[in-house]
Amino acid sequence: MPLSGQIVRCPSLGDAAFRSPLAGNGCSGCVPDDLWIRNSVETTAEDLLFEKAGPREKIYFDPLATKAAIVTCGGLCPGLNDVIRSVFLELAMNYGVREVVGIRYGYQGLNPQAGVPPVRLTPDMVESIHREGGTILGSSRGQQEPAVMVDFLQQQGINILFTVGGDGTQRGSLKIYEEIARRGLKIAIVGIPKTIDNDIPYCDGAHAESKGVPYGIGLVKVMGRDAGFIAAAATVASQDVNFALVPESSFALDGECGLLPLLRKRMIDRRHAVIVVAEGAGQELFQTHSLHRDASGNVKYEDIGPFLKQHILNYFTNHGPKVDVKYIDPSYIIRSVPANSDDSILCDRFARHAVHAAMAGKTGVLIGHLSSRFVHVPIAMLSGQKRRLPLDGDLWRAVLAATGQPREMR
Amino acid sequence: MPLSGQIVRCPSLGDAAFRSPLAGNGCSGCVPDDLWIRNSVETTAEDLLFEKAGPREKIYFDPLATKAAIVTCGGLCPGLNDVIRSVFLELAMNYGVREVVGIRYGYQGLNPQAGVPPVRLTPDMVESIHREGGTILGSSRGQQEPAVMVDFLQQQGINILFTVGGDGTQRGSLKIYEEIARRGLKIAIVGIPKTIDNDIPYCDGAHAESKGVPYGIGLVKVMGRDAGFIAAAATVASQDVNFALVPESSFALDGECGLLPLLRKRMIDRRHAVIVVAEGAGQELFQTHSLHRDASGNVKYEDIGPFLKQHILNYFTNHGPKVDVKYIDPSYIIRSVPANSDDSILCDRFARHAVHAAMAGKTGVLIGHLSSRFVHVPIAMLSGQKRRLPLDGDLWRAVLAATGQPREMR
Amino acid sequence: MPLSGQIVRCPSLGDAAFRSPLAGNGCSGCVPDDLWIRNSVETTAEDLLFEKAGPREKIYFDPLATKAAIVTCGGLCPGLNDVIRSVFLELAMNYGVREVVGIRYGYQGLNPQAGVPPVRLTPDMVESIHREGGTILGSSRGQQEPAVMVDFLQQQGINILFTVGGDGTQRGSLKIYEEIARRGLKIAIVGIPKTIDNDIPYCDGAHAESKGVPYGIGLVKVMGRDAGFIAAAATVASQDVNFALVPESSFALDGECGLLPLLRKRMIDRRHAVIVVAEGAGQELFQTHSLHRDASGNVKYEDIGPFLKQHILNYFTNHGPKVDVKYIDPSYIIRSVPANSDDSILCDRFARHAVHAAMAGKTGVLIGHLSSRFVHVPIAMLSGQKRRLPLDGDLWRAVLAATGQPREMR
Amino acid sequence: MPLSGQIVRCPSLGDAAFRSPLAGNGCSGCVPDDLWIRNSVETTAEDLLFEKAGPREKIYFDPLATKAAIVTCGGLCPGLNDVIRSVFLELAMNYGVREVVGIRYGYQGLNPQAGVPPVRLTPDMVESIHREGGTILGSSRGQQEPAVMVDFLQQQGINILFTVGGDGTQRGSLKIYEEIARRGLKIAIVGIPKTIDNDIPYCDGAHAESKGVPYGIGLVKVMGRDAGFIAAAATVASQDVNFALVPESSFALDGECGLLPLLRKRMIDRRHAVIVVAEGAGQELFQTHSLHRDASGNVKYEDIGPFLKQHILNYFTNHGPKVDVKYIDPSYIIRSVPANSDDSILCDRFARHAVHAAMAGKTGVLIGHLSSRFVHVPIAMLSGQKRRLPLDGDLWRAVLAATGQPREMR
Repeated sequence: MPLSGQIVRCPSLGDAAFRSPLAGNGCSGCVPDDLWIRNSVETTAEDLLFEKAGPREKIYFDPLATKAAIVTCGGLCPGLNDVIRSVFLELAMNYGVREVVGIRYGYQGLNPQAGVPPVRLTPDMVESIHREGGTILGSSRGQQEPAVMVDFLQQQGINILFTVGGDGTQRGSLKIYEEIARRGLKIAIVGIPKTIDNDIPYCDGAHAESKGVPYGIGLVKVMGRDAGFIAAAATVASQDVNFALVPESSFALDGECGLLPLLRKRMIDRRHAVIVVAEGAGQELFQTHSLHRDASGNVKYEDIGPFLKQHILNYFTNHGPKVDVKYIDPSYIIRSVPANSDDSILCDRFARHAVHAAMAGKTGVLIGHLSSRFVHVPIAMLSGQKRRLPLDGDLWRAVLAATGQPREMR
Repeated sequence: MPLSGQIVRCPSLGDAAFRSPLAGNGCSGCVPDDLWIRNSVETTAEDLLFEKAGPREKIYFDPLATKAAIVTCGGLCPGLNDVIRSVFLELAMNYGVREVVGIRYGYQGLNPQAGVPPVRLTPDMVESIHREGGTILGSSRGQQEPAVMVDFLQQQGINILFTVGGDGTQRGSLKIYEEIARRGLKIAIVGIPKTIDNDIPYCDGAHAESKGVPYGIGLVKVMGRDAGFIAAAATVASQDVNFALVPESSFALDGECGLLPLLRKRMIDRRHAVIVVAEGAGQELFQTHSLHRDASGNVKYEDIGPFLKQHILNYFTNHGPKVDVKYIDPSYIIRSVPANSDDSILCDRFARHAVHAAMAGKTGVLIGHLSSRFVHVPIAMLSGQKRRLPLDGDLWRAVLAATGQPREMR
Repeated sequence: MPLSGQIVRCPSLGDAAFRSPLAGNGCSGCVPDDLWIRNSVETTAEDLLFEKAGPREKIYFDPLATKAAIVTCGGLCPGLNDVIRSVFLELAMNYGVREVVGIRYGYQGLNPQAGVPPVRLTPDMVESIHREGGTILGSSRGQQEPAVMVDFLQQQGINILFTVGGDGTQRGSLKIYEEIARRGLKIAIVGIPKTIDNDIPYCDGAHAESKGVPYGIGLVKVMGRDAGFIAAAATVASQDVNFALVPESSFALDGECGLLPLLRKRMIDRRHAVIVVAEGAGQELFQTHSLHRDASGNVKYEDIGPFLKQHILNYFTNHGPKVDVKYIDPSYIIRSVPANSDDSILCDRFARHAVHAAMAGKTGVLIGHLSSRFVHVPIAMLSGQKRRLPLDGDLWRAVLAATGQPREMR
Repeated sequence: MPLSGQIVRCPSLGDAAFRSPLAGNGCSGCVPDDLWIRNSVETTAEDLLFEKAGPREKIYFDPLATKAAIVTCGGLCPGLNDVIRSVFLELAMNYGVREVVGIRYGYQGLNPQAGVPPVRLTPDMVESIHREGGTILGSSRGQQEPAVMVDFLQQQGINILFTVGGDGTQRGSLKIYEEIARRGLKIAIVGIPKTIDNDIPYCDGAHAESKGVPYGIGLVKVMGRDAGFIAAAATVASQDVNFALVPESSFALDGECGLLPLLRKRMIDRRHAVIVVAEGAGQELFQTHSLHRDASGNVKYEDIGPFLKQHILNYFTNHGPKVDVKYIDPSYIIRSVPANSDDSILCDRFARHAVHAAMAGKTGVLIGHLSSRFVHVPIAMLSGQKRRLPLDGDLWRAVLAATGQPREMR
């Protein structure tokens, strides 16, 4: 029984009525509905609780009468095909669902005007897809009208929709869920997050390049529009980075402890440097240091990578020595590799938990991974929240230790 | 404040008295000593609490007067050099410890009779070691006399010893710790576990081999003397395995649901199969099915890999069809590769937390990783406990789903 | 015009009569039939000449009336799927051949008794196969009766057969070719050799293992039944090997310059060693040093890897010091990886040249690669010839330089 | 004996007088000075002959009195550290040369004004460098004054200089050689070419990205300022490329068979496309299609990658459909990885042949690789020659087959 009032329960379609085929088949791991997982293991943290994910003994949808669909949205990342494959296999092989379709090109495929009808998935079709990058279904960015998409789900007789994607995708899922609730339909929506923390070995290249020439600077842009997790991980993994720039920690270009003077000091002492910059870092600099303004004199928002490269070149042209900046932007390469083993395992588990949730009649939930447990997180709780790198935590401290950069650069 | 009496606190050398150089240097992440981490996030689990790891504001050892040592023990695994490097760098660069030595060839190097004196570590020596597999210090299996080792630590003036290794190594640490306590010495011992969960892509090879010939069987032995985590992970990651054999789940060779009849059924239906076997699986079969007995008729304990290969060949010779078994034992290859990015990050964090613990005067503790938090685990609590794969948990369920094998094979 | 009488011309089915679709489509690279390639660029070598491979302006088979087949034989190696794919695409897309079938499980698939009928290849089927190891058609070792196979080719109406495999396979091709010639049939046979020179990075593992323990010896067995090319390449590529043992250079175990005393000297000086042994090396030792004899006292032929491991252990048990031998046999792992880029390119070119040859009516030929040129080699010329590593050549000198081993070990 | 008058012999310092330590040590592979290698194996080609590389029985330099130097110049590529290591080891271990120095940062290190003195190489220093990318010596582009560099060589008492680099570097070598000849000094210069043909797997990423979105275009820029070998190899290796653009084959953007209309046709038919463009392709388009002109209206030369991306976007904006172009520029990443096995072997052999040449008193030569043989190529013969991809050869035909693009795009 939950300990306090902050508990959240995900709404459902009504009571689950069917006995699960997994329960009948020796499913000793069935999870009761009143098992709760704490959001945090710290004793000082508030007791926010989540429903534990896992197969239920009773399920809501009759497998033989169920039609499920899966859609992948937003930018590519490793593991999308793993998720598609495991969702299909869990539905078809373990629950006995007979019809599973793939929606093409993200939410566009839920709008009949896009002219890309769903494709029926089969065991042959998914057999080897986990060894290739990308998504066999295609993807797209952006939303479609919820009413149009729910019309389409009704038309197609779809009972369950799995939405694979990041924050934007899940905001879309929430709107679909709300429209379904408004119409009182018996359609479940379960979200599956994307994992993008694949290997980032490219700082080695930057390191070799920076050391390979006199006064060489390797500048690597990595993913992370809102958070610096990937930049931090790449930094700690490579141990060759001298400056890690993340959205959470703003920095100045000039001034005694600004990036450029610190970089110059390093270049004079050591003759080479590696900088990793998250794509969302330093946005505040565009206002003050923009190199480009439009006709009306407004700041043009820019790509932080080339922006930094240009400012570094300008600074060293003025102050010496002459530096050689190698700019590396590996994003599309990283995004489209197949998942590594760790990611594959995680994707398989997210996918199968999503199926357990949906078959049990959970809806409007996203599968979450909290302290090594899988849970049901109401999608509504996500709104506006972004996970950010805590600057007083372990990982950032490891970044400071690996780089030697000061805590404040301004 | 802890919630209940099951709390454990690690003993210490006395009060920490020095202000940490990290605290002076903007260490906004210093951890107070009364922060507790729950062992489990499940609300139904008992409240076993552990001290949170991290840098303390006050430290016990004066960095300028401290001599630290590090030893790597047992079999190789990826990341040992990462740990050595990060322990050295955290001690030398962040705490200002001036003398750090590496003990050669495991606990042998703490016995003067082995004739392998410690080597003094320097920044140049460790600069690139994380890009190579193995351990620059060497390793060895087995124990040395605690009294001999503590004599050596005293002789050498070593104040802190970091022991990197698995269960056997940590049992050795405990004996050293107890001997130190008996003598009332001011020497801290902090253990660092080994991570062996590196990528295991070799099932792909087994799959290709098994499909490449008529009636092909790929048989892969993976690490795991006491637990099947690696076998399970390899199975879920590759999605090509048909039978996963682990120590936690005993199985019969014969009988209706025994491995061999099930394998034969699969061969007739699909003409190829992949089996992954943990090295500790099926030990109970040696008693009943041993192919080799010694002169007195006693069972000779055997390697499960060749044992299974032979039984499979015998069985199909008798019952048909003729099969072609490819046996793959990739253990030494996996063990000696450099750490991948995920492992590198983990090793760095384990290493730096061990330094924080030791400098703060914690001793007799192992750095643990619980629900994404690092904690201090009293080594004494480890005794006799082995982590085993729960057969009613997510991961095993994912194995059953990926293989299609029955829950009981007997 | 050829310079001398050593010229070989491959026999053919008669004159080519059709204009090639490639010629019609801007095939500026069509090769005339009287272009000759020297076997050797050395001016001291005899002038053995081969026909240059490449598309011909006139072809023998009418694409619209042609049915082609492809068979993969023998052990797996990287690139088999690349070859299948490129043969199919060249036939279907460039020549317009409408029917291409894959023979299943090597020569077994040409014997109706095996019960594995050919499978018709399609663009969809081959689209992604080059990214997977193994062969989608399956393979097998050993021969079938030529008369049976030729009956089958006639029955199925097959006009062209591509045989992919090593020496044994090509001896089989020759028998099929001779049977066809005897019957006067209009069926062309073109062989495609297997490339097995894939990356062999596993000596790094052996090196790490050997240095990781006191007196560690890494012993790695690599492919090479008759020749030491792979052992030599692995040695030069890794630069960590101390003894490279190949079939071309016999060696003694004992005696002043025997392997075991030399190995002991190295162990005393440097405490670790890496040995690479080709599977065909040291066969002459079995006679004199066999550890196993059968009931009648005859030598049992053995696997050189475990044989060496045991002799090393015995020797050091007697003479000290105590060594730790890690034996690594990566063969099945190497064999079943997908081709790397270099291999992929080579496979594509072998495959397309085989198609050009067959369509032009060449038969009884194997595609060869001589001094960076592709040529037609009459299969009959292969008989009994094995390529062996020249002990006075560059590569072996590079091995001696990399290892420091003496030229004679006996 | 050479067959005709087109023979070239490299000039030398005078007769070799010392017996080689390799000859004394069982060098059964010593090469006499009158062994000639044909430039081409085609019987129709002219008989241009080159001296065969390899150790000589007599050498010119007394190893005990020789000081050698090595310099790496130009952009990074895989294998530079392999070359440095093998040159050092062959000199020190096999010839017994006692002093080998590394010149820092390319030709800059031969100019005392740069303030980067040579570093003395030792076995410890080079032991593991072949496992890292880049060059431990650093590199730089551009030339220094020959007189200044030769002054420096004299000052430092250097007898042999190895220059590792591409065409520009070798033009520099030639000037140094000519200055040495003018002064009549006993200093040998031997060039070693760079190999840049490392694995290029990044087209897979482009393929996944292009298929991952509706109307996706993956655009990958690869190295190749003057020649399309890398673009062609990447195309044939990946088999996923639809347009390969190389410097040797000019193309139009517009017009019936121009790139943009053909690309549009493909997008409408198949909805995705991958384009590989060598950095030197399409230079002629800047004149006619430049998007940027300077203040005086002159064409600004541009980077072909972003240039193509912009023209594609403009074209589809006007003609539809809306496409999504992912631009990938992996150059710095590819350049700085360690060498793969094939490259390592090649680098080792180039390096050791360069040492044999220099010790035997060859000078003004570059080590060449002709039809699987190593030869001495007079550097003077290189001037102005660039190797270009033959458009009527095998490789380009394989590109056309793999892409399906027309031979002429204009």
